[in-house]
Amino acid sequence: MTKAKIYVTLKESVLDPQGQAVQNALHSMSYTSVQEVRVGKYMEVTLDEQGDAAHEKIKQMCDKLLANPVIENYEYELEEA
Amino acid sequence: MTKAKIYVTLKESVLDPQGQAVQNALHSMSYTSVQEVRVGKYMEVTLDEQGDAAHEKIKQMCDKLLANPVIENYEYELEEA
Repeated sequence: MTKAKIYVTLKESVLDPQGQAVQNALHSMSYTSVQEVRVGKYMEVTLDEQGDAAHEKIKQMCDKLLANPVIENYEYELEEA
Repeated sequence: MTKAKIYVTLKESVLDPQGQAVQNALHSMSYTSVQEVRVGKYMEVTLDEQGDAAHEKIKQMCDKLLANPVIENYEYELEEA
């Protein structure tokens, strides 16, 4: 089995209201040294495949469901589960 | 400047309805080899501090705002921004 760690983030050009809200909250808690906050999704997917087959399946799942290609980028790492 | 990459995940004992929903969706798309999906938050926080000072600030922000200690765990990595 393989565990995929998937990081989905908004593309740089896309406004991040959630990140802005977190940044404002941190500033109001006196963490004024914070310059920027970007918020995204982190997913762990465990599947039967291994090696290249796992890479191929995870890539398909990200392209089709887990990330919106219009506004999001994704990266992933695979490890033995 | 430092960029912190923060991963917030639900504790193992906590039910993950969002993860279950994603898993059901993947199964309905014929990805039946998926055994489990856990969904969490991924945040990138850029701040002025560096080294130990950055570690201390990020830890405080996670403990106070970014992660709910009752139901969530967090991990982070720091890199030059």
